[in-house]
Amino acid sequence: MDKNELIDEEKIEKIISELTLKEKVAMCHGNGLFRTEGVKRLNIPPIKMSDGPMGVRAEFPDDSWMPIGNSDDYVTYLPCNTALASTWNVNLAHEAGRVLGNEARGRGKDIILGPGINIVRSPLCGRNFEYMSEDPYLISKLAVPFIKGVQENNDVAACVKHFAVNNQETERLKIEVEVDERTLKELYLPAFEAAVKEGNTYSIMTAYNKLFGYYCSHNEYLIKEILEDEWGFDGVVVSDWGAIHDTVEAAIAGMDIEMNVTYNFDEYFFAKPLIKAVEEGKISEEVINDKIRRILRLMYKINIFSDDRKSGRYNLPKHREKTLDIARESIVLLKNENNVLPLKDSKIKTLAVIGENANTMHSNGGGSAEIKALYEVTPLLGIKTRLGGQTEVKYAKGYSADKSEKEKLIEEAVELAKISDAVVIIGGLKHTAEDMELENNALTVSKDKEIKRYVDSEGYDKTDMDLPYNQDELINRVLEVNKNAVVVMLSGAPVKMTEWIDNAATVVQTWYNGMEGGTALAEILFGDVNPSGKLPVTFPRELEDSPAHKIGEFPGGEKVKYTEGIFVGYRYFSTYDVKPLFCFGHGLSYTNFKYEDLKISVNEEVADVDISAVFKLTNTGHIDGAETVQVYVKDAEASVERPKIELKGFDKVYLKAGEIKEIEIKLDKKALAFYSVEDKKWTVERGTFEIFVGSSSEDIRLNGEINLESSYKFK
Amino acid sequence: MDKNELIDEEKIEKIISELTLKEKVAMCHGNGLFRTEGVKRLNIPPIKMSDGPMGVRAEFPDDSWMPIGNSDDYVTYLPCNTALASTWNVNLAHEAGRVLGNEARGRGKDIILGPGINIVRSPLCGRNFEYMSEDPYLISKLAVPFIKGVQENNDVAACVKHFAVNNQETERLKIEVEVDERTLKELYLPAFEAAVKEGNTYSIMTAYNKLFGYYCSHNEYLIKEILEDEWGFDGVVVSDWGAIHDTVEAAIAGMDIEMNVTYNFDEYFFAKPLIKAVEEGKISEEVINDKIRRILRLMYKINIFSDDRKSGRYNLPKHREKTLDIARESIVLLKNENNVLPLKDSKIKTLAVIGENANTMHSNGGGSAEIKALYEVTPLLGIKTRLGGQTEVKYAKGYSADKSEKEKLIEEAVELAKISDAVVIIGGLKHTAEDMELENNALTVSKDKEIKRYVDSEGYDKTDMDLPYNQDELINRVLEVNKNAVVVMLSGAPVKMTEWIDNAATVVQTWYNGMEGGTALAEILFGDVNPSGKLPVTFPRELEDSPAHKIGEFPGGEKVKYTEGIFVGYRYFSTYDVKPLFCFGHGLSYTNFKYEDLKISVNEEVADVDISAVFKLTNTGHIDGAETVQVYVKDAEASVERPKIELKGFDKVYLKAGEIKEIEIKLDKKALAFYSVEDKKWTVERGTFEIFVGSSSEDIRLNGEINLESSYKFK
Repeated sequence: MDKNELIDEEKIEKIISELTLKEKVAMCHGNGLFRTEGVKRLNIPPIKMSDGPMGVRAEFPDDSWMPIGNSDDYVTYLPCNTALASTWNVNLAHEAGRVLGNEARGRGKDIILGPGINIVRSPLCGRNFEYMSEDPYLISKLAVPFIKGVQENNDVAACVKHFAVNNQETERLKIEVEVDERTLKELYLPAFEAAVKEGNTYSIMTAYNKLFGYYCSHNEYLIKEILEDEWGFDGVVVSDWGAIHDTVEAAIAGMDIEMNVTYNFDEYFFAKPLIKAVEEGKISEEVINDKIRRILRLMYKINIFSDDRKSGRYNLPKHREKTLDIARESIVLLKNENNVLPLKDSKIKTLAVIGENANTMHSNGGGSAEIKALYEVTPLLGIKTRLGGQTEVKYAKGYSADKSEKEKLIEEAVELAKISDAVVIIGGLKHTAEDMELENNALTVSKDKEIKRYVDSEGYDKTDMDLPYNQDELINRVLEVNKNAVVVMLSGAPVKMTEWIDNAATVVQTWYNGMEGGTALAEILFGDVNPSGKLPVTFPRELEDSPAHKIGEFPGGEKVKYTEGIFVGYRYFSTYDVKPLFCFGHGLSYTNFKYEDLKISVNEEVADVDISAVFKLTNTGHIDGAETVQVYVKDAEASVERPKIELKGFDKVYLKAGEIKEIEIKLDKKALAFYSVEDKKWTVERGTFEIFVGSSSEDIRLNGEINLESSYKFK
Repeated sequence: MDKNELIDEEKIEKIISELTLKEKVAMCHGNGLFRTEGVKRLNIPPIKMSDGPMGVRAEFPDDSWMPIGNSDDYVTYLPCNTALASTWNVNLAHEAGRVLGNEARGRGKDIILGPGINIVRSPLCGRNFEYMSEDPYLISKLAVPFIKGVQENNDVAACVKHFAVNNQETERLKIEVEVDERTLKELYLPAFEAAVKEGNTYSIMTAYNKLFGYYCSHNEYLIKEILEDEWGFDGVVVSDWGAIHDTVEAAIAGMDIEMNVTYNFDEYFFAKPLIKAVEEGKISEEVINDKIRRILRLMYKINIFSDDRKSGRYNLPKHREKTLDIARESIVLLKNENNVLPLKDSKIKTLAVIGENANTMHSNGGGSAEIKALYEVTPLLGIKTRLGGQTEVKYAKGYSADKSEKEKLIEEAVELAKISDAVVIIGGLKHTAEDMELENNALTVSKDKEIKRYVDSEGYDKTDMDLPYNQDELINRVLEVNKNAVVVMLSGAPVKMTEWIDNAATVVQTWYNGMEGGTALAEILFGDVNPSGKLPVTFPRELEDSPAHKIGEFPGGEKVKYTEGIFVGYRYFSTYDVKPLFCFGHGLSYTNFKYEDLKISVNEEVADVDISAVFKLTNTGHIDGAETVQVYVKDAEASVERPKIELKGFDKVYLKAGEIKEIEIKLDKKALAFYSVEDKKWTVERGTFEIFVGSSSEDIRLNGEINLESSYKFK
């Protein structure tokens, strides 16, 4: 059912006519850290919110950032968004949303604050794990089913965030992003547009930073012009916690609900000051009415007034199964020389598991994305239970933040590796900062701190891309005694691997991968599951190879210049011919796939231009597997500079050993367009476009071209 | 397959002939807190053990009682044995064993130390939760499938404990139990006999206490005469940790493996001193060979030498499902006036959940039965997720160990109850002692301590049966404002309820009920599951009504006189006409059952005497349900004093609403026998026996009688 049908516009206008100004304003700001105030007199309940997107966050009192601490807010812990994106599986994105929405409703929430759909601009952004990709097309394809999953059966609202160009944590409360309009339209806004127009998200959260001179929460261009007028958004605009700095500016720009991190709820910009601004005539009451209209509309969409409102559930076994399904498909096999993987359990009597991340739970990390998980299967636990008592599993910590332990830990690990039949090293980044100094939970850390940070967490960016705590040395010394030691990186973003990558036969990338992350990893390592994850972000060799650092600025100063423009991620690496360590879309399998017989057809007789790429895909190996086939497009000749390749289609295909399938990927004219700043329109110029079909952005297996007779311009 | 077929006796003798005395002795004692030493030279591995029986305990280093603390030893947490017994479901006992065995093997264990099958003699024994019942027949019927479940598909050994008459914790290392032979045979040994002869347990653990002048571990009568000669036990006798006090006495009595709590493994009684005793001729080497023979036999039974030894798994979703199945059937509806239960969720907009036990995890309690649970659903969490966001659930602690909080907590709870549509109070006992002062993990607490103890835990008995922390007052004051407040007791043993029982319409008994205990409780409270648990122990009104306290001694002095003899539990209450609060076998349902048409037949033409009781059972209500039908026997006239009733048969019957089933319960001559001390034989005297069929030991619905023409005597 289209939830818009639930909206009773007449009733809404009637309610608005009955509400006093004070009552209206009470609905427009937090009166608890995660709720607004309702209007008892008219049976309007408060709106209850919770952080996401990896699960429903622990319960907080109205007026304290210390969690309540009862036992009733343990929840299902989902893989992080980067993991979800690595599956390239739109059905799993839908399932993830369904789980999150169901749990949010089960916990009594009205709005769940997710998904995070900002572009991954630099490997260093502390919140990359909450985001999906460097590519707006991939994000859109995953965010839309995710949002639908959250909303469609759960009587709960998604809240996409952070609108817009919130691509770093450093000084996020103050910085102004300087980005050109074409880049904004082509890279930073499309996923939000899809979330609104296709996903029908009921709410959206504005970002902390400034754009074009205004805070995003005060930004008429973003909220009024683009979101509401251009995209037709009729839902609720919520501020990030503490993102509003001026009552009148924000109210007129289109903010509907102010949330904040402090407890003086009456003093919020959208509390008493908003009443005053109306009374003083600075804002017309109709501006407030529009906010109430949107809030009530959202309430109808989530059935808040109905006795038949859906109940949700949390901690369901089937929710846990979904987290496992996602984790299984998210793990990326980066390198596998000599078929070291999968490990053969029957031949391994003793297994060394090395590295702190093997034995660390990450669910409670990340800042506002922290989860009070019902449980979390670490890699060590996943491996141990997979081996079931028939292999002796021994653990060595290998590294730690404590420098004084360094040599001892490395020696222990090397000794253990020497006497073991097989070795798995599990390193990577941390998810919680031991020196967390955030105040009020949602603020930022000053970049002039001289501490090196290696944490994937809200509030921080990483200092560099290095693997912390002497892991490089650990890995090399273990590889010296066992060249087939399997190296697993567990992180929310790429780390520098060049110190040891040539010595390692096998490298696996995993993520903050939900409560069954360790189970999934063990299944991959021992071949129960054939890996099928593909990188949703480029893994550069060095930080300096990354366009935000090479051409643009990161983290910048008061202003952050996005000088790299549209050349973010693989758009940069491919166009500028910079070799990444592992390219966008890369991910190996235990089987092989053959691509053949590409046929491309184009039909310009229809409004959208129908383009179809058809080819044959064969699983040529001896085990079943899945391949994400990727279609990239290149504009052979254009009046503006265009990237060498852009992802415009993909499909995840499951093939039994030996199976052949005919695959069709459809594109339309939007796949060929750039944003013309002159015309303020999407533009396709007639002529030749090359179409590449491949297993990654670099591993192109088939190519062809099409010729357009006409040019096209459209909104 | 009969695992005895795996034993290669010839190979065993060959190995024994090749072992040096030192090597043999290394196999007979702990060389780590939970393992023996193997013999590398002959590829004999150590035997690895773990505490049970509610799951596989956390991993300890060889030489410390501080758990290792890795993430790889989280496990499935099963309901305690009293909960399991409350299901009266032999299939669930089998499933519980399967889970435990599978997890033990998954964790790499060879012996799992369980089940605990001692008789529940007094409500105060701290370890009652680890035991099953006051009735040896019920224990036997559950312990046998439990042991089979552990052993049959898992290549792992059960270890029944504690052999024998270990019925209290107070001074357990020192006391001597004074029990008459008939009582020993009729009450305290039958479950062990069944465990050996029917369950085929591969190992057994001796108790700490003394019997007939000897420590159980030095006790030739118990080990040689009864266990080995009479019952034919060919497995391994393991000492409780630190239960051996003399090398020669224990070795000759038949102890096979000494385990202990200290780290000086070479100084254990069965280490260097055992070598010395052989060398000095105090023990013949053949005594040692017999131990090795038994140990090797166990190793063959568990396939320890085979490359095809089964692997196990732990933390499997299906294991968690089984814990939920057990928990659902274990909860006992004690009282339900005016059909207050089940609660109707749609009518409850606000629910008050009151009481610390609603919000307390118990998995890590109990002493050696403590579990590092993967997770634990508390009652509060179970209720909250069951209600799925449609009912506002608020929690008040209600009581705590901190006396200064008393009035504040009660007032908070009463205020919350006042404004809530429905109230659930969840009280009971604690499972961990805050003032735990046990040393070395396995010792006992001196009874002269003046601290009141309300803890269901190894090492302690409770001081009295009172409900601690002013719960009586809390319950009464809440009932004053809501007479339909549901009272739930969560404990491993009965508590005194007389202070408030008449004021409460509804009382539910639950237990330390595994990782899904809170889920099961919520399902019962809201009618998703129809309760079917029956008490496996009598709930007396007052402690003084309990036979061990009224007639016998508890906890006694250096000697503990079991003067009540066979009159333990309902045998006492029925015979002495003492009214319990809730009788043995009691448990209500949301439906009703009608019993009719009892026909009893007896056939004396067969060796065993075939007795058959056939009757019709009808579910006369409107919902499906399960009834445990119970058959009690009374010897109408006997030459010795006999209990008024004794349980000799039961069946758990699942009936749809309106369904009728014909039930047949079979008995044999053993069901009619007493143990004749004069003849040293089981004795059935000709004449009349009454047969009672009922819903509990007091709620007898049908009765009849049989007449035996002959008398019988048998071993």
